[in-house]
Amino acid sequence: MTTPETLVELDRGRPGLTGQLTVALREAIVQGRLAPGTRLPSSRGLAADLRLSRGVVVEAYEQLVAEGRLVARPGAGTLVAPDTGVSRSRRRTPDAPVAAPTGIGPTTRPSLTGTGIGPATRTSPTGNAFRSGVPDLAMFPRVQWRRAYERALSRARDADLDYGDPAGAPRLRAELANYLGRVRAARVDPADLVITTGAAQAFSLIATVLRSRGATEVGIEDPGSAGIRGHLEAQGLRLVPVPVDAEGLDVEALWRTGLPAVLTTPAHQYPTGVVLAPRRRAALLAWARQTGGLVVEDDYDAEFRYDRDPVGCLQGLAPELVAHVGSASKALAPALRLGWLAVPQGWRTAVVAAKFAADVGGPVLEQLAFAELLASGGYDRHLRRCRQAHRQRRDALTEALRRYLPEARISGVAAGLHLVVELPDGIDDERLADAAQRVGLAPVPLSRLRLAPGGPPGLVLGYAANPPAELTRAVRTLAGLVSPPLTVPPAGDTPVPIRPPRAAGPGTR
Amino acid sequence: MTTPETLVELDRGRPGLTGQLTVALREAIVQGRLAPGTRLPSSRGLAADLRLSRGVVVEAYEQLVAEGRLVARPGAGTLVAPDTGVSRSRRRTPDAPVAAPTGIGPTTRPSLTGTGIGPATRTSPTGNAFRSGVPDLAMFPRVQWRRAYERALSRARDADLDYGDPAGAPRLRAELANYLGRVRAARVDPADLVITTGAAQAFSLIATVLRSRGATEVGIEDPGSAGIRGHLEAQGLRLVPVPVDAEGLDVEALWRTGLPAVLTTPAHQYPTGVVLAPRRRAALLAWARQTGGLVVEDDYDAEFRYDRDPVGCLQGLAPELVAHVGSASKALAPALRLGWLAVPQGWRTAVVAAKFAADVGGPVLEQLAFAELLASGGYDRHLRRCRQAHRQRRDALTEALRRYLPEARISGVAAGLHLVVELPDGIDDERLADAAQRVGLAPVPLSRLRLAPGGPPGLVLGYAANPPAELTRAVRTLAGLVSPPLTVPPAGDTPVPIRPPRAAGPGTR
Repeated sequence: MTTPETLVELDRGRPGLTGQLTVALREAIVQGRLAPGTRLPSSRGLAADLRLSRGVVVEAYEQLVAEGRLVARPGAGTLVAPDTGVSRSRRRTPDAPVAAPTGIGPTTRPSLTGTGIGPATRTSPTGNAFRSGVPDLAMFPRVQWRRAYERALSRARDADLDYGDPAGAPRLRAELANYLGRVRAARVDPADLVITTGAAQAFSLIATVLRSRGATEVGIEDPGSAGIRGHLEAQGLRLVPVPVDAEGLDVEALWRTGLPAVLTTPAHQYPTGVVLAPRRRAALLAWARQTGGLVVEDDYDAEFRYDRDPVGCLQGLAPELVAHVGSASKALAPALRLGWLAVPQGWRTAVVAAKFAADVGGPVLEQLAFAELLASGGYDRHLRRCRQAHRQRRDALTEALRRYLPEARISGVAAGLHLVVELPDGIDDERLADAAQRVGLAPVPLSRLRLAPGGPPGLVLGYAANPPAELTRAVRTLAGLVSPPLTVPPAGDTPVPIRPPRAAGPGTR
Repeated sequence: MTTPETLVELDRGRPGLTGQLTVALREAIVQGRLAPGTRLPSSRGLAADLRLSRGVVVEAYEQLVAEGRLVARPGAGTLVAPDTGVSRSRRRTPDAPVAAPTGIGPTTRPSLTGTGIGPATRTSPTGNAFRSGVPDLAMFPRVQWRRAYERALSRARDADLDYGDPAGAPRLRAELANYLGRVRAARVDPADLVITTGAAQAFSLIATVLRSRGATEVGIEDPGSAGIRGHLEAQGLRLVPVPVDAEGLDVEALWRTGLPAVLTTPAHQYPTGVVLAPRRRAALLAWARQTGGLVVEDDYDAEFRYDRDPVGCLQGLAPELVAHVGSASKALAPALRLGWLAVPQGWRTAVVAAKFAADVGGPVLEQLAFAELLASGGYDRHLRRCRQAHRQRRDALTEALRRYLPEARISGVAAGLHLVVELPDGIDDERLADAAQRVGLAPVPLSRLRLAPGGPPGLVLGYAANPPAELTRAVRTLAGLVSPPLTVPPAGDTPVPIRPPRAAGPGTR
């Protein structure tokens, strides 16, 4: 049995971490997010992942063993007791608090043999460094996915090959609701979950239903993803920018708009990486409750957090107010086109009808394969493997940036698949990105993601798809482009030149 | 090498079948529809399939061998010469005529071992007999599909796992364009082909583009498929019925409507089974050419023809006027959600943009698997196997109908996956269908498929999904329901009772 990814709640600002961890694990067990029989990480592994001393974890485990909630089995580690005597519902009660949660991370590192994660045919990427929003496709778990697909196909009944439920294969919806509850602290009824052709279709369906209910505009974060805009506009919605500051979406500004819905990235704002502050979360939900507005939560890269405690999704705080969108595009591969959408109960019928009108339903066999991957723990193992690689890549990127572009201010490094560098005023980030593209790099200029004018120039740099050495090389190349010709004169001032990059160190090419 | 399915043209009304067959095969070779190296069916097999004497086929083959277009190889049969010295383009020239074409049918019967077509887990269907529009899901070639998926996955480059071409995987579009040219006499440039999530999404995309170009209504056949209507209406199109008569779509009536587009099923009208008559085809294309209207050709079950010469698709006559829609739902399984849409060049950009807005693109791996299945000949083999089974089922159904429901007039038996029985006036087909549903049968009442009032009562009976004995049983059950309580009095007349069914024969249950 593998160790499942699970959110637990810690508040490092408060004393008594042992007590907090005990409470958090107890809650996860009682709520069923840690199911009976589940093996917990080793105390050493959990301590490392949570950045706690090992003694804290040992003590918490011992307390829960004493309570009968955990059992320690020689050779099998620490397991959730087979019968905890409490409800197995993995639902939180609506008033149960979700504080800043954290993750039970990897303890049993996936071995490269025997896990089904085989060596992929690695095509050395040339260029396209810094592309954001894509995983390292060479890490796609081909062997494991093939086995999951085979199992799905061999276990499928003939009836599964028929026109299916437009909301998606029930088995996947059940597994996914479980996963989202476990890892994202979501509260999802499989009946309210619709499997979509990537997150893109989820946005398209929401926009369709918003339009059918009379909405003509929708709020989007500024700065925010340029990619999603098209899916909303294609359904005839006008986009209204809502500013983002250091605490995330500006909810007071949202109030002033009178909008019927807003799209937001609370766990890791795109592109800034800002986490929506706790009081802003409360304010956003109050806005939704009082205006009847819909919060559309794009949980686009929530699986990937490094130094930071992960943040549970907004949907788990108020499933009746939030439409939650996710996909396997960033964790497995965009080509699978596997996305999902959990909607408030009152939206279910309309969203499923929109899905039916669009395409009757998605491909069933790959849905069943994804259900197999989730059920077998293979998805969790893959996420851990990716997270480890991403952390190394992020570290290589930040190190190279500090070395070759020391003027750049780096932010958004604690999570996700990209970071942001703010550049000195006077740099034209659009021209810089264009120049970078000509030499095979793919940064996104910050100004392209802003709807309102203003803000410093900068670049979004993805790091998931390139090994450390490539990222280092790419930063050197980028630094070579940040030179006087790319600066533009600030009004009434002289151009601000960026000093030329240092000479490349030996042995890098 | 397997024998590919290929359309050749014969006109049985004219004398000189040997000459006609020679010309037809020569054209198929010259046009590249029969590629160099392709093995032809045995003369015996082809003769049986075309209902010609074997001598006719032998003579045609000999002529083409003498011309150097075919070669006879001991132990390998008759093959298209490796180098025919003509263009390998499989394109027809636009003015090349397409007469009523026919098929080079099965000669090498697929063996159940070694072909990858393994025995499926057969769940004995109870009920749901007569359901139309679905294949026998127990015949889904699971082993072959699994192998195709494995091959696709192992051959995919990492880049194939990325966000792909919204129009679909280029490899599938190339294979499919080839297939549609070979089997449906279509003239498809892969660049004009969009892979869709089933035929449903193809209709949805066409409707979206029609709306964006200002169209508010679209013509549909009356009677016609109820299922498609929703996809068109969901995009805001009003549906205008255009009558169907014994020659197919009434093009004169279409002229009177002033409509910008019409949806039609020329090869096998749904539900009547009527083939659009040659002069109607010409008239329909003239309508499109002169009004600028779009013909949307739903080629929904074109793979399945039995006694009748198959009819090439309309798109092949005028690719610039026809949007061609097809899917693998009737031939493989609806759950795959694999459909396609070939559009006139001027529609390409808008349709691909609509696909991108809807979902960015479809799942790539199953598209590549389908490409593998097409390229390996596995799809052709599966179609032959299905066709043989369908013919037997259709024969069992018609025999049972003649025995147990002799009053019923049977039509549409030469092709497809369903037939139509017209019932004596006075039968309420809606009530009969409801009663049938209560005992586990799934016929569709003709009156539900009609938009304008009138026409005799009747039922659409699907036969693809049920073995012969089940169909026989189902007819007996149905006949038991056709009794006076189900008749309604014609205006000013007395109810027309249907005599009770004969006693069931021995040995059937």
